[in-house]
Amino acid sequence: MLPLGRRVQDKLEALIDKHMSKIAASKLALSSISSQKLWKKSGRLGISSELFRFEDRKDVGYLLAPTHEEEITSMVASTVKSYKDLPLRLYQISRKYRDELRPRHGLLRSREFVMKDLYTFDYSISRALATYDEVRKVYANLFDELKVPYLVAQADSGDMGGNLSHEFHFPTSQGEDYIISCTKSCGYVANEELAESAIHTAVGSGSGLEVWRGISRDRQTLINVWYPSVTPDRKSQALPEVNMHAVKAIVPQLDASIEDPSVLWMSPPTQSGSRRLLNLVDGRLPDTVRTKIESNSAGISYWPSVEQMPEIAIDTISQNPANQQPLNLIRIQDGDACPSTNCDGHLKVERAIELGHTFHLGTRYSKPLKATVNVPVELQEDGNAAEGLNTTQPSKSSQEVPMQMGCHGIGVSRIIGAVADNLADDEGLNWPRVIAPYEVVVVASKGELEEAAVEVYDALSTSSGSQPLRDVILDDRTQSFAWKMRDADLIGYPIIVVVGRTWIAKGMCEVQCRRLQISEEVPLEGMPEFVDVLLDQL
Amino acid sequence: MLPLGRRVQDKLEALIDKHMSKIAASKLALSSISSQKLWKKSGRLGISSELFRFEDRKDVGYLLAPTHEEEITSMVASTVKSYKDLPLRLYQISRKYRDELRPRHGLLRSREFVMKDLYTFDYSISRALATYDEVRKVYANLFDELKVPYLVAQADSGDMGGNLSHEFHFPTSQGEDYIISCTKSCGYVANEELAESAIHTAVGSGSGLEVWRGISRDRQTLINVWYPSVTPDRKSQALPEVNMHAVKAIVPQLDASIEDPSVLWMSPPTQSGSRRLLNLVDGRLPDTVRTKIESNSAGISYWPSVEQMPEIAIDTISQNPANQQPLNLIRIQDGDACPSTNCDGHLKVERAIELGHTFHLGTRYSKPLKATVNVPVELQEDGNAAEGLNTTQPSKSSQEVPMQMGCHGIGVSRIIGAVADNLADDEGLNWPRVIAPYEVVVVASKGELEEAAVEVYDALSTSSGSQPLRDVILDDRTQSFAWKMRDADLIGYPIIVVVGRTWIAKGMCEVQCRRLQISEEVPLEGMPEFVDVLLDQL
Repeated sequence: MLPLGRRVQDKLEALIDKHMSKIAASKLALSSISSQKLWKKSGRLGISSELFRFEDRKDVGYLLAPTHEEEITSMVASTVKSYKDLPLRLYQISRKYRDELRPRHGLLRSREFVMKDLYTFDYSISRALATYDEVRKVYANLFDELKVPYLVAQADSGDMGGNLSHEFHFPTSQGEDYIISCTKSCGYVANEELAESAIHTAVGSGSGLEVWRGISRDRQTLINVWYPSVTPDRKSQALPEVNMHAVKAIVPQLDASIEDPSVLWMSPPTQSGSRRLLNLVDGRLPDTVRTKIESNSAGISYWPSVEQMPEIAIDTISQNPANQQPLNLIRIQDGDACPSTNCDGHLKVERAIELGHTFHLGTRYSKPLKATVNVPVELQEDGNAAEGLNTTQPSKSSQEVPMQMGCHGIGVSRIIGAVADNLADDEGLNWPRVIAPYEVVVVASKGELEEAAVEVYDALSTSSGSQPLRDVILDDRTQSFAWKMRDADLIGYPIIVVVGRTWIAKGMCEVQCRRLQISEEVPLEGMPEFVDVLLDQL
Repeated sequence: MLPLGRRVQDKLEALIDKHMSKIAASKLALSSISSQKLWKKSGRLGISSELFRFEDRKDVGYLLAPTHEEEITSMVASTVKSYKDLPLRLYQISRKYRDELRPRHGLLRSREFVMKDLYTFDYSISRALATYDEVRKVYANLFDELKVPYLVAQADSGDMGGNLSHEFHFPTSQGEDYIISCTKSCGYVANEELAESAIHTAVGSGSGLEVWRGISRDRQTLINVWYPSVTPDRKSQALPEVNMHAVKAIVPQLDASIEDPSVLWMSPPTQSGSRRLLNLVDGRLPDTVRTKIESNSAGISYWPSVEQMPEIAIDTISQNPANQQPLNLIRIQDGDACPSTNCDGHLKVERAIELGHTFHLGTRYSKPLKATVNVPVELQEDGNAAEGLNTTQPSKSSQEVPMQMGCHGIGVSRIIGAVADNLADDEGLNWPRVIAPYEVVVVASKGELEEAAVEVYDALSTSSGSQPLRDVILDDRTQSFAWKMRDADLIGYPIIVVVGRTWIAKGMCEVQCRRLQISEEVPLEGMPEFVDVLLDQL
């Protein structure tokens, strides 16, 4: 980060600090280095191939932390013992590390990045969920103040554990994620992993049948995904494609990296174990076709055929086991039906960049790292008490339970990159006021006007009434006036105050704002107020 | 860093920012990760065993940077081309890494630490030296404002290159460095590596003779250091010991890690090359003894004797080659004579912690990393022009010369540790006002006084006139009054405002300041001014 970028980062960090203080979160700083031993305890050391690992001169294993659940949980475990110390909310803004296979798009996906990570600790699930809601609200306030568009999507919590998760997305064609949202006011927004669409109509029994094949990680299960070759119930003209997220949701063992499972399936099994054929049937297919698939007579041959390998077990799934709804196995496209109950809206698919996320972690880390508190029995809730570590003494007046945790990130460097890329126009960058390196730049023609420029700068740098102090810079470099004006546009200061010809003629400055398309002559006396009115809109 | 420590760090960083802006230094942020390839170019990769090194998933070599000369020099090399862009002063405050063999004393010597590093770029030596002086002055202002005692010592620049260096030391019995200073006003201060003391009297010819032996890194040179067994010219009663820094200054090839060189010297030479015996003779020894040593008849035998190995060359040094002064090879002790010309003062040896340093680097990094600027011939100085890279065209009107660099560090986390340890008393920590986590804490008895405490807090948190806003905290936790008072002492807030019995009786608070030994009853109206007067002294 060069000096101006560094100022943008400082301002963004100050904005985050301000909103974190609203939920009584305290700021601390954990080491960027974590020990491999600690990560073994949580079970995350083996999972990730994206950890930068190294040894010290005594061959002790360390890593550059991508996130700090382990460190904060073990620290809190060693200091907090009573439920009276909760809720506890701790955050930091620091450099994190991930050995990305393909770092790209500058600050959007880099191996060193700056993140705000907030960790919350509560003594019951309901209190943890209340904390979760507080964080979601404060995130919304923060992104509102940043004045960039964003979507809040339901998300899958992946490796982080827990089962409640939202992502804050910035919609942009550069994004690597897909966000699905309803175009009506029902409020449905989900990321592609979690998104669903409703099936309203079955296709006719005469329409074509397609099958996509995958294999499980242990190579024992062949997965057949059956779907219609055309989907007249959908607005999209695109040919239907299998939705891998939907398949994985039903068959988590799917090895999504295998494109053609035939070789693996045909080769003799390396380990004993029952081989299995699993049919997933899209809900658009009519009952007659489903029955044929179930009875193994759909007319598309298996390899090898069941006749050749009679020991293969065959299972067929045509309903989501979680909610008994028909399966929708086709990738969502613009115009698909909204899955919300009683909503007849259609879905929109947008590319987006994830700028923040909230996770309810539950006891994913507090259990293995033994972060527990004593809670009086009368304050306990059923769900939480069941998770207690010493349930052998039900007669005790208090019980030791693992803390209910949440973790909540904001991608600091990523926001800077996303805002820079997406708000820029042909003239240059275009910062929202709250993170602009300076709010106002004063640029003067050379010579006699340099003194006037200092006068203008002084007037703007003085606080007027209850308004916060304006953050003004005077460009007093020796370059030409035209060069400095171009530079001011490139840097993207929200407001440019020009001290030029109109100053000599009428004692006025030209106040320019590219975003609001304003260019107005303003006398010195009214300028601070004029600038404040513009800044409020930026 | 827990939340209060983190606030101390924020304040210290803000203090540094303030003083850096006084010399027009711009703040940036370089990656904590540097590439091994770049460090090979500067020649530093091989030298250090204290680098944390690691590879990414593509087996590319990286390191956690302990300092950023390579990164900043290559960045400046790629962007700055003209002398008109200089002087350039760039700094950052960031985490640095060193794989210390023995991390210890908490923040004083840790493997991850926070450092401010400033890099300066000039186009001539005289301008670089003027920059160096500016930095030294601003460092003095910074440490003055911190209100901790410090010593500025001449220092050796070690691995950093260059030849002008000062260290800013905090004197404390915990320190790992020794600082030598004159007790008179001559101003002599040096660290142990660079310190010298004057020899006023030779010892009598009859006094005993000691010899210390060392060996060179290539095992080809045996070093004999000759010195008197008693030194009646010195105040110290301690038996004289060899000053290894003084020996290394004369014989840089000395392998200081070898305590007994006899085995290495007696074993047959592994490589061809002329073996050599080097005598260093302390200036206190009388001429008669020196002559005996030179003629190899001092009466203490060599092993093996010169008679046995006639091919060994013998050299004797009894004067410093740099200044023709007699050698002083004895470790400096309290009371030794000051080396300054015309000073008859005595030296004091103190333990201290290094908190900051300034280095003139010259072209140590700009040459290998090709950071050059074009300088018009008329602006060049002799010394610098001689270092030009393309001296083949003396008729050109400008010439490409390597930039003259400086690097200037401040140990941020180390200052926090040193101040915490050394200003603490039996009651707790004791922060200087400028880096205290809060300047003032308001503590109230429970119950009805809690509202009064808010009133006091509000009065103190409001700016009065030109004074900067006071940084006040209200301890509104639920613990007992006595517990909160003890906690306030432990944390070391400069000022404690107690809302207690005297509030009920007379509407007054008790303002306490442990450092100034003040405890006074003050009415609410006069309190902000009263507190400001105290804060100015803290």
